[in-house]
Amino acid sequence: MVSRMYQPANLREGGQESELTCRSQRLMQQAGLIHPSSPGCYYYLPATVRAMEKLVRLIDQEMQAIGGQKLDMPSLCSAELWRTSERWDLMGKELFRLQDRHGADYCLGPTHEETVTTLVAHQASLSYRQLPLLLYQVTRKFRDEPKPRFGLLRGREFYMKDMYSFDVSEEAARRTYESVCHAYDMLFSRLGLRCVQVQADTGNIGGTLSHEFQLPADIGEDRLLVCGSCPFSANVETLPSGKTDCPRCHTGTLAESKGIEVGHTFYLGTKYSRIFNATFSNHQNQAVVSEMGCYGLGVTRILAAAVEVMSTEEAIRWPGLLSPYQVCIILPKKGSKVAEESGASAEGLVHALQESLPRLRGEVVLDDRNQMTIGKRLKDANRLGYPYVVVVGQGALEETPRFEVICQQTDETMFLSKDGLVDLLGRVETV
Amino acid sequence: MVSRMYQPANLREGGQESELTCRSQRLMQQAGLIHPSSPGCYYYLPATVRAMEKLVRLIDQEMQAIGGQKLDMPSLCSAELWRTSERWDLMGKELFRLQDRHGADYCLGPTHEETVTTLVAHQASLSYRQLPLLLYQVTRKFRDEPKPRFGLLRGREFYMKDMYSFDVSEEAARRTYESVCHAYDMLFSRLGLRCVQVQADTGNIGGTLSHEFQLPADIGEDRLLVCGSCPFSANVETLPSGKTDCPRCHTGTLAESKGIEVGHTFYLGTKYSRIFNATFSNHQNQAVVSEMGCYGLGVTRILAAAVEVMSTEEAIRWPGLLSPYQVCIILPKKGSKVAEESGASAEGLVHALQESLPRLRGEVVLDDRNQMTIGKRLKDANRLGYPYVVVVGQGALEETPRFEVICQQTDETMFLSKDGLVDLLGRVETV
Repeated sequence: MVSRMYQPANLREGGQESELTCRSQRLMQQAGLIHPSSPGCYYYLPATVRAMEKLVRLIDQEMQAIGGQKLDMPSLCSAELWRTSERWDLMGKELFRLQDRHGADYCLGPTHEETVTTLVAHQASLSYRQLPLLLYQVTRKFRDEPKPRFGLLRGREFYMKDMYSFDVSEEAARRTYESVCHAYDMLFSRLGLRCVQVQADTGNIGGTLSHEFQLPADIGEDRLLVCGSCPFSANVETLPSGKTDCPRCHTGTLAESKGIEVGHTFYLGTKYSRIFNATFSNHQNQAVVSEMGCYGLGVTRILAAAVEVMSTEEAIRWPGLLSPYQVCIILPKKGSKVAEESGASAEGLVHALQESLPRLRGEVVLDDRNQMTIGKRLKDANRLGYPYVVVVGQGALEETPRFEVICQQTDETMFLSKDGLVDLLGRVETV
Repeated sequence: MVSRMYQPANLREGGQESELTCRSQRLMQQAGLIHPSSPGCYYYLPATVRAMEKLVRLIDQEMQAIGGQKLDMPSLCSAELWRTSERWDLMGKELFRLQDRHGADYCLGPTHEETVTTLVAHQASLSYRQLPLLLYQVTRKFRDEPKPRFGLLRGREFYMKDMYSFDVSEEAARRTYESVCHAYDMLFSRLGLRCVQVQADTGNIGGTLSHEFQLPADIGEDRLLVCGSCPFSANVETLPSGKTDCPRCHTGTLAESKGIEVGHTFYLGTKYSRIFNATFSNHQNQAVVSEMGCYGLGVTRILAAAVEVMSTEEAIRWPGLLSPYQVCIILPKKGSKVAEESGASAEGLVHALQESLPRLRGEVVLDDRNQMTIGKRLKDANRLGYPYVVVVGQGALEETPRFEVICQQTDETMFLSKDGLVDLLGRVETV
């Protein structure tokens, strides 16, 4: 249950620095969570992988709750498919292109409409009974951004969850669209992130209806207009410039704010299914072109955006469910009176946590860098943002040992017995 | 707990066919587990993703048991690093190469010695106390194989677990090497796969000591020589041709067999750490170059190799722990007498499984394609290789309903009550 301090925590220096930086990038690099490699490409270090795996489990739960099935599509996408959709030219320099040893053209998939529609088109005898079909993946995507910046917020290589839906009719496709938007709301609400759903432009993806999921943040690159009187909000790109009265309620005034786009949904209609001939058999056994939607979530971007909006200038704060570790236990400084006399109660504490809270297996870090003062290690713990920090100090020498517990998300400090601590940590939500 | 038959089970046709095929490729395509896209590139369909996620959990357990820390490195690798190690030229056409919009050269990482050594070299003040450092990832790798073939056994885009170790001395590095080999043995033993560890050539990776982990199989592309008298075995490439007496025991005769390479370990010495200056501070606070090792497991290849060696010509068999689903329940044919009268006992069964076996949540497929005969669905279930198939038939109408249970891995058939079935399935191992 107890992990030693993960080793590469002080990977801090070197690498290529982006010109543009932001709070989450700076904090994550300082804390040894990410390390820059090429422009817009990062090493995700062990604690980040843990946070990302938790986020992916949450996404899996929400996607599977609405019938999503997880698959995994190739990154190497044949140029032929992209020429068929005409996006080979349309995407311009944003597409990473390469040739194999035989001179065949490929791109590295930045999104997979062509790939998934081809797959479904090849399905023998897809029946209306099998629709809606909701296929999704969580994979690495590639975009040759002109200006990669802000750490994981705008990279060239990143993780995205992309889902594609196939429906029997426009009406059914719009119902699916609503259910995915609802699943996204559920996800952000479980993460404790306030997210605004705004009308958006459909860009090169195409289609007739689109929403962005935006986290309001000063660093945000998108400009939103939010109505003060009704729930209307939109990306400025979708409204005539200078517009300040709400097009929905006609009484409210639109105020501008900035946002980080963390999700995007598109109703595509038959744009891709027509081109690639993705059909199903209807009641009369006739082939009908499917109605499609596609739905993205920026996985690594959500991690960084959450850190961006929840942290202070000095200290990382995570959505509780995503914190790489839930608990950090700080043992007394070597050679101190407490260190010499608290051995039994520290061991008792660790044992009690192991026995009573198997659910926290792997979630507890034991900070045994005992040559360092408690103060210095508390500072590290604060910076990394463990939800709970437990200090084995003077109180551990009392007849009923007591431990100092700092709840970093609420800034509360408590002194608890072993049983009190087990009780408190037993209520921690994990995924 | 109960999943409907996952939809794209009959994705069977179309796509690019490889010239060379084998049992696992044929069976996996027929069963809707994989679907070909470009040569050597496959869609992993939902059941395969489930099996792969299980395999990755097992790998995580074994790697973390020996102190492995999971990170995630970029696929886009700067040419600069590969030129520094001289592998930019050495790898020739096997390396997928591309340029970004600024004309900078990159390759798609087929392995990450350069990338990880650079990371560790950038770590400020790495102390001997922090070693051994074992860093691993499970990510997509890219190799432009001259002849991609045999489905997932030799692809151009595939999943690999690659681990890299950093040690204070050759002696310590050899201990780490042994512990990784032991972890690989543990993994294959938990999978129920007989794996041979053979001496191997170090190829372009370099280093002075190397072993392959081989699954004996007729389709295998590697030729092994195995001693009849002692545990010695080696890849033929490492022995003088025509050699038939064992170089270790000198009494046994070497017999040839074929194998599928599923893992590979290398003791690298300081080949990369010297070039990239990956050092640590020793007791005397002097900078010393680390001793390295690297260790690969072919994740998608293990899946296919397991299917290859365990299946029959007609039916897939999985290592129990990797089976995408553990149980398939076949409901009676619509309109049959059993269908009309067994509703309550089928519901009781499903309810009992949900209540008593929360561990099997998501592991049970309910085959409700009730327009099909039981025989036809049994055939599908046999072909897909669920470890347990439960048929709701005549016996469900008895006063104490009984269900037919087929244990596909042992070919046993039993008739069990609801409680007997809960008892049997309660003993199923999951990961």
